[in-house]
Parts: sequence; C-alpha cells; structure tokens
Amino acid sequence: MDEQQIIKWLKKHCKPIRDEVILGIGDDTAVIDYSNDTYLLLTTDVVVDRVHFISGRVSPYGIGWKALGVNISDIAAMGGIPLWALVSVGMEKNKSDICKKIYKGILDLAKQFNIDIVGGNLSRSEVLFINIFLAGIVKKEDLVLRSTGKPNDILFVTGTLGGAQKRKQFSFIPRIHEAKKIIEIVKPSAMIDLSDGLASDAKKLAEASNCGFEIEAERIPVSADASRKNKIFSALYDGEDYELLFAVSPEYESLIPDSINNVSITKIGRLTEKKQFLLRYQNGHKSKISEEEFKHFT
Amino acid sequence: MDEQQIIKWLKKHCKPIRDEVILGIGDDTAVIDYSNDTYLLLTTDVVVDRVHFISGRVSPYGIGWKALGVNISDIAAMGGIPLWALVSVGMEKNKSDICKKIYKGILDLAKQFNIDIVGGNLSRSEVLFINIFLAGIVKKEDLVLRSTGKPNDILFVTGTLGGAQKRKQFSFIPRIHEAKKIIEIVKPSAMIDLSDGLASDAKKLAEASNCGFEIEAERIPVSADASRKNKIFSALYDGEDYELLFAVSPEYESLIPDSINNVSITKIGRLTEKKQFLLRYQNGHKSKISEEEFKHFT
Repeated sequence: MDEQQIIKWLKKHCKPIRDEVILGIGDDTAVIDYSNDTYLLLTTDVVVDRVHFISGRVSPYGIGWKALGVNISDIAAMGGIPLWALVSVGMEKNKSDICKKIYKGILDLAKQFNIDIVGGNLSRSEVLFINIFLAGIVKKEDLVLRSTGKPNDILFVTGTLGGAQKRKQFSFIPRIHEAKKIIEIVKPSAMIDLSDGLASDAKKLAEASNCGFEIEAERIPVSADASRKNKIFSALYDGEDYELLFAVSPEYESLIPDSINNVSITKIGRLTEKKQFLLRYQNGHKSKISEEEFKHFT
Repeated sequence: MDEQQIIKWLKKHCKPIRDEVILGIGDDTAVIDYSNDTYLLLTTDVVVDRVHFISGRVSPYGIGWKALGVNISDIAAMGGIPLWALVSVGMEKNKSDICKKIYKGILDLAKQFNIDIVGGNLSRSEVLFINIFLAGIVKKEDLVLRSTGKPNDILFVTGTLGGAQKRKQFSFIPRIHEAKKIIEIVKPSAMIDLSDGLASDAKKLAEASNCGFEIEAERIPVSADASRKNKIFSALYDGEDYELLFAVSPEYESLIPDSINNVSITKIGRLTEKKQFLLRYQNGHKSKISEEEFKHFT
C-alpha cells in the first residue's frame, strides 16, 4: 500500500459531514464556506530531511523558504491569496542557529506575500521536519478547482519545467500574482500546481476532471536547469517546479498572454474525452505517459 | 537556547501586520477576525516518536487520539468549538497498518466532536510524527485568553492531575463541553489548558496576565494514577493532563459548580498581584514553585 492508496482509504473515511465544508481532501486545499463573499482555503504540507531535502547539502534558509513556498503554491492553484500560517518545526536540540535560519527563510517569503505567522510549535525530533499550515481566502467567484476541466480545454503552464531539484525548489516564487492575473483575464476551467512533475500532476488534473490529455512534447517549456539527457523527460518527471498547470476553454485560448510579470505562459496541449495520457511528438510519434512518476512515498 | 528562548525570538519576529489578526503567537490558539459574530481560532501541535510517545509501547490508535486531542484541548482553552482539521503524518514506508490505526484514533475522536478532516498529507520520514492543524470558531463574546486574569481571581481546575503519562494522555476527552458550560455560567477572566503540568501552565497564565499565583497544595485534585511518592508533585509536574485551568473573579466564585458532566471542578488557589509562584500548605509552610518543569525541548 503506497501513499495514493492510503489517501484513497482516507478519502473514503473522511467524507465531510459539516455543511460549510465545500471541499475536503482531494484538491490543493480544502474549501470552507464561512463568510459571505469569500471561501476559506486550508492547506498543509511538510518537508522532511532525507526525503524532501538533505540537510547539510542545502541552506537552512532555503529549506524554510521551500517549506512555506509549497503551501503558498497550493493556495495559488485555487486562485486564492495566502493570509495566515502556523509553523511546526521538529529538530534535534541545540540546533538553534539552524532553527533561526530556517525561520528566516520562512519569514522572508511570508513578508513577500504579506502572510502573518500566527502560531506553531517547536518540538524535539531525531529527524528535521518543517510542517506548515497555511490559510487563505478566495473570492467565491474566483475559486478554481482541479476537477472542473472539460474535454478540448487548452492546457497551459507557467514558467519552465525540469531540474528544479538543483536550485529552484529552494528559492521559487509561488505563482499567486500570476494566478490572480490569469483569473482576471479568463477564469481557468481547472488548475493545479506542479509539485510532483508535469506528468503526474497533469494526470491528477485530468483524472479529477474525468478527462484524458494530450501534451505536445516539443511545446513543453524546458528549464535551463533540466539535467537529464532527455530534457523533455526532465520537465515531465523531475518535479518540484511549483508552477501552475491550468485549462482554458478553447474559445478563450487567444486571450491568454505569452507572459505575466515576466513569467512565461505556454500552451502545451489539451484535455481529451478519451481517458488516455498521451505525449505527442511533431514527427507524429505518440507515447503514453509512463508510470515513471515522482513518488515521495516509495 | 531552548524552546522558550526560540519562541521569544520568534514572537519578536512574527508581530502580526494584518488587521484581522487579533492574536498571533502566544496563547493556546491564534485568533482571527474574519466573520461578523465569531472569531476564527487556528492551532497546531505535533507528537513525535521518542519525544511525546514511544512507538511499540503504546497503541497507534492512542497516538492518533492524542495527536488530535492536544489540538482540541487548545481550542477548548479559548472557549471555542473545533471544526476542521488537517493531518500530516510522517512515517517509514510499508507501515500502512500502523498508519491506518493512527488515523482510526484520529477519526474516532474527530467524530465525537463533529470535526471534519479536510486535508493533510502523508510523507516518508525516518521518525514517526503526527502534526495536526485544527481550526475552530468562538462567539466573539465568549473568547477567553490566558492574558486577562486579575489579581485575586480564583483559580479552578477541571478533573484530576498527575500520572497522565500512564494512560490518560492517549485517551483523554478534551474539555470542550465543560469550557462551554463554564462560560455559560460565568466567563472566566483567563483560561489555559494543562499540557506541560499545572506548575508550568499556571505560571504561563499568571505571567501572561501580569500576576503571580498562590496554589493551596492540599486542594490540588490528584489523579489516582499519580505515581510519584509526593502525589502533589505528580500533579504539579507530570504534565499531559489536558485539563483546564481557569480564573474567575472572586465575586462569581460561588457560581462555579463542583462538577460539570461528571468532571470535577476544583478551586485550587488564586492569582496575586505579587509576581511570585507560591505553593501553600495547610501547616503554613510555603514554597516557591520550583523550576522543575516539563520541557519537551531539553
């Protein structure tokens, strides 16, 4: 039983009973109807030593930055803005210097997005971990889910993909402002943030939307850091990009600009009625997106 | 530098900038003004293997129960009701049986309080930890802080104290209903939940309220599980009781019942203007509450 199976088991046992819970487990954040004109968004994500980073090989500042960034990215994927964070740190004792540097990374990124750190705790642990909880809000009409894409919707990604393990995962800017701008131009039919790699996350969006997808291999915007021999595979499978993948109805395709705030926006394919996950090459070659996925829990 | 020092450093660097943040770090939960008639309460707490429990010596079910219970207890201490939880679990792979039992403990307690598990994540980690985030609400007029006690206010505790390590910490019922009832009768001037032990937590309440306290040793309700030779010391220092300590203005003292829902309510002393932390015995002997405190992070 792997992570996905346990999550399936959990979803079955965690069906929301409260009326105000619009969405529980299953999207980038939970969605709560608690105020007149906004939804409350709740998310949490953890980074663990020797799983999401190797302490000693990366700056504590970067670890803190990433720990908050992955959560902000989840709020971005729902079209929301982040507001209040709680930070749990587990670490060995007598490491207060490292601890402060981790918090410095968290606090600097929090400042960029006007997020208040309103609570948390510090615990002894033989393995370093940082677990951040983040709450945000989204105007009700701006909420974007991953499950509402339609066949033939055009797929776009922000930024470039691949090789993020090298540097980007510890210094990325979550796409809050870009998501907001995109929604102002045309509200995507579905959106997800890219944490596990384009192949895996596109599949999540397509499956949640009851669709398949076709991605045009040569359109994928590959990062200069992509390190595999096959750069496209780097972009598909490396993970940790924290860009946005979103779907737009074909009638609005032309409204999407080439870039927002100097972040490129690239058309990479479309959702399909047929539930296949295809990669198309210009030479006519097609291949199914392989099962080589980015799995933390294996 | 220990946990308390890092938390002091953090408080200095995490002063809220957002108007809606009524209270950030420093009480049992954060308090957010986001709706007309209620405050949003946000809290998070973690339990870590070989710090808060020893896996193998306690049931995974009990570990899960405790992991959620400590958070519910924080909401109780603010006078609120818990609503939505997110659950992060870090554990070694191929432990899905243990994982399910942990979740079972969480889910059963969640059910008792109508809490929805609305998100979370599962990560590989060499050390088992469960980090739960819990949100709740409190009617604005019912919010109770730890920092608003006054000299001469009478101190009460719910339940009995000491020896909770043995059993109670893995099966306690957080005092949500009792807190609500107490507030209906008379709103406490200050309240805190007892996680680190009466000595330590009474000191936190008193210091936050800019007071000292006198506790009458023989009045402390000692649990049958209290295991130290000196039972009173067990009640003062063992910790993990998850009862409530609250202060009530002397004019309302007589309104507080002896028990609520079969949970005893016991007067144990009072807040004082003089910032001393005193234990008084019937024979006239007085002693300062010692520095022998319950510290996870040492």
